[in-house]
Amino acid sequence: MAAGAMTGAESVLRTLSAAGVRACFANPGTSEMHLVAALDRVPEVRPVLTLFEGVASGAADGYGRMAGIPAATLLHLGPGLGNAFANLHNAYKARTPILNVVGDHAVEHAPLNAPLASDIASVARPVSHWYASAKDARGAATDAAAAVAAARSHGGAVATLVVPADAGWGPSAGPAAPMPVMPPAPVPAEAVAEAAAALRTGEPAALLIGGAATRGPALHAAARIAAATGARLIHDTFPARLERGAGVPAAQPLPYLTEMATEALEGLAHLVICGTQAPVAFFAYPGLPSRLADPATDVRTLAGPREDAAAALEALADALGAAGEPPLAPARVPEPPTGPLDAAAIGAALAALLPEGAIVVDEAVTASAPIVQVTAGAAPHEWLTLTGGAIGQGLPVATGAAVACPDRPVVCLEGDGSAMYTLQALWTQAREALDVTTVILANRTYAILDFELSRVGAGAKGPAAAGLLEIGRPDLDFVALAHGMGVPARRAEDGETFTAALREALAEPGPRLIEARI
Amino acid sequence: MAAGAMTGAESVLRTLSAAGVRACFANPGTSEMHLVAALDRVPEVRPVLTLFEGVASGAADGYGRMAGIPAATLLHLGPGLGNAFANLHNAYKARTPILNVVGDHAVEHAPLNAPLASDIASVARPVSHWYASAKDARGAATDAAAAVAAARSHGGAVATLVVPADAGWGPSAGPAAPMPVMPPAPVPAEAVAEAAAALRTGEPAALLIGGAATRGPALHAAARIAAATGARLIHDTFPARLERGAGVPAAQPLPYLTEMATEALEGLAHLVICGTQAPVAFFAYPGLPSRLADPATDVRTLAGPREDAAAALEALADALGAAGEPPLAPARVPEPPTGPLDAAAIGAALAALLPEGAIVVDEAVTASAPIVQVTAGAAPHEWLTLTGGAIGQGLPVATGAAVACPDRPVVCLEGDGSAMYTLQALWTQAREALDVTTVILANRTYAILDFELSRVGAGAKGPAAAGLLEIGRPDLDFVALAHGMGVPARRAEDGETFTAALREALAEPGPRLIEARI
Repeated sequence: MAAGAMTGAESVLRTLSAAGVRACFANPGTSEMHLVAALDRVPEVRPVLTLFEGVASGAADGYGRMAGIPAATLLHLGPGLGNAFANLHNAYKARTPILNVVGDHAVEHAPLNAPLASDIASVARPVSHWYASAKDARGAATDAAAAVAAARSHGGAVATLVVPADAGWGPSAGPAAPMPVMPPAPVPAEAVAEAAAALRTGEPAALLIGGAATRGPALHAAARIAAATGARLIHDTFPARLERGAGVPAAQPLPYLTEMATEALEGLAHLVICGTQAPVAFFAYPGLPSRLADPATDVRTLAGPREDAAAALEALADALGAAGEPPLAPARVPEPPTGPLDAAAIGAALAALLPEGAIVVDEAVTASAPIVQVTAGAAPHEWLTLTGGAIGQGLPVATGAAVACPDRPVVCLEGDGSAMYTLQALWTQAREALDVTTVILANRTYAILDFELSRVGAGAKGPAAAGLLEIGRPDLDFVALAHGMGVPARRAEDGETFTAALREALAEPGPRLIEARI
Repeated sequence: MAAGAMTGAESVLRTLSAAGVRACFANPGTSEMHLVAALDRVPEVRPVLTLFEGVASGAADGYGRMAGIPAATLLHLGPGLGNAFANLHNAYKARTPILNVVGDHAVEHAPLNAPLASDIASVARPVSHWYASAKDARGAATDAAAAVAAARSHGGAVATLVVPADAGWGPSAGPAAPMPVMPPAPVPAEAVAEAAAALRTGEPAALLIGGAATRGPALHAAARIAAATGARLIHDTFPARLERGAGVPAAQPLPYLTEMATEALEGLAHLVICGTQAPVAFFAYPGLPSRLADPATDVRTLAGPREDAAAALEALADALGAAGEPPLAPARVPEPPTGPLDAAAIGAALAALLPEGAIVVDEAVTASAPIVQVTAGAAPHEWLTLTGGAIGQGLPVATGAAVACPDRPVVCLEGDGSAMYTLQALWTQAREALDVTTVILANRTYAILDFELSRVGAGAKGPAAAGLLEIGRPDLDFVALAHGMGVPARRAEDGETFTAALREALAEPGPRLIEARI
């Protein structure tokens, strides 16, 4: 390399930095060593080490949801991307801005079938809205600029850039300038007019919001529309980021269960979709519909996931003259719980103690619904959910959200079964001293599966099936597991102990874990 | 469904059972519930629950390597397969027989973009020698029969069968009969004759063995050939299953480092490849070759990975008249170590205590070489390595090997960094009471990366890079982590304590963990 020339790796990192990337969740290997070394020359990008790639991708998801700008991940060839896949799937469904930087073998080495060689593009495509592989060190910065622009465009996307080792170590011409970021696509005036006409009929109607429409001025506009027209305001079952609590316009969640969701949507003359897609069942079940809307309902899309839902809702509110203050959720804080611990008791303690501006990451699975219900009137907060159904998302998303928002407390509600997919996140929380309180809802079973087994009509549960649904032999000791990764932890088996543990955890700045035996 | 008709799910499981499948490493979800329920009606297939899919795939790898027949995995859609990907990559490179059964949405539900919908085929293909998706319940058993046959053919392959939920719950016509298993392809007589001619020249030569050639009669024949011709006997750097120890023909490993590997192969007139491919560097490095053989060497393939390496070696030995007993490794058991603990001391304790017939799973990474060296004369045993370079393989492979070989002790040598990828394997070891002794080589760093950083010419290590290479802030407490998953554990910081802990662990039947601070 010419003396003094910048490596391709450094040109890539400087390009990311110039385009606004400020964090890199990394689990690198040999092929990424030049990118690792370049981090010391680009201090604006904060490196955060994870012990497993699924933590890196989930943390990038949490970061991107809260920061609105992409974090980078740094991953090691196809297997590293494979380990990151499940949480990238969740981010892909959430349309979180993320930039994956995946190291690969040097270009001439790649076809030789070395042990780590594999088809990275094939793994990447199902979880990448944008994909490219740099060809050499000179072009890598331009590819990186395009990748960040893609990740930031249309409200957010997962972009994956493969950087071969020699594109990292070879000489570059320096960083590339940021490329234009495409805003969400504007919604045609006719879509607004048609939605207005539908809602003006006075017939039974609902407005289903998702994506960017579940918070801020967009949520406010949606609530005004609902108030002015009598339409019900419903949000996606699993929103990426939902604003809620006292003083926030309240939307009702579309229920998870097909039977309850179809009942919730039954008899509507109009269903207006904004920021999401027409609702479909999470799973198919024998004899139940996959499409959740009443077949007699007129379903129309005001704004799809890549369109400007916020502007569309403002325009629709204007068209309907929906100007007044919408109804806001009243403050409603239950008494702290006493006696036996269950999900509702945990929710009550949370509602009582949740600080204003808290971020709640919800992977409580079967325990979620009662907690959601009882916290509706807690201090205003945001709620992040399992957008893609790939469990193991909670602890990493909480980690990334805490990196993005160091001044806001993060609470992670986590099932014991799902916690075990990406428990390594605790170590990163300890290393980075992140203010995350993890509550493990320990029922020693895959309760959701126990429930689903009966729903799919698979018949009575024999011992083999039962053995695949319970995780209580041996019992997982989450206090020991947390200690093993440097996170202080306590166990709670009743309401009083849980409330005390939660109060203590929220008062302390670093990570804490509470194993809540329910 | 017609009263009494067998579900597609049960027809699939009965087909697997009829074709020899005896174990299923599972981490199922809703779309797999009919397969789960069917396990109670097909008791010949043993279900083994894992808390993470990477444990299931790695365990299937360990099982398949030792049993020689495929275990099934049971995985949940694209994200479940994604979590399994890294260890399937290792199995794919090892050509381990494995049958992945991946649940999917019902056929009509799949295109609706439900949260868990994704392109499963795209994730599967890089780690599957064979792939199919069942179209309906009637055809699923036939697909399953083809899948097992593919997994068992040509000496072993990774086969992936997607089973949509409705192909599981719909009515079938019962199980399908086993399909023919294709043996490894025969080696042409000319290849044997040419290899014989090359080795007869008396010029400097080496025989490089991998795949099926690193054990049993094939290894014996290779050693006879080497003894008769003066050729050196070398084995792949990362063999899937290597027989070694006192009384076993000894082969030398091809070194991992490019510089040492090229030196080992320098000056050869002939290099005969058997059961593997011509050697390539693990990674490319600036200024170093990717192909490891001396450019002046005549490299010829006696048998490739899908060919019958064992028969080819017997034929070659016959052609060369290499009939006598080859030299066998002498028994050489060092004194148990005293004083400070390092890799060599751990190797000495292992060499002294290793029971005959033990299975050693080696993911010790930088600590491996000294242990390999000092155990060469231990009681005869088998050694399983990281075939695909995707770390997080050791604990799961040890788990599956112990399921396959309940009467043989398993020792897993595991780096602390790599242990954290799939630590959940410990819980399955505890649940199934598997006789696995895990030795964590805890140096609190990604030592291999620290070493590689300097080798790739990335310059001096600044604090950002240093922070991505060490994992000692906070220290991982593996004793606590093991206890948290129900595995008894001890810490050892000197030779005496380690030896005592290892002796105790090997004497006890269930799983044990030793955190060896080096």
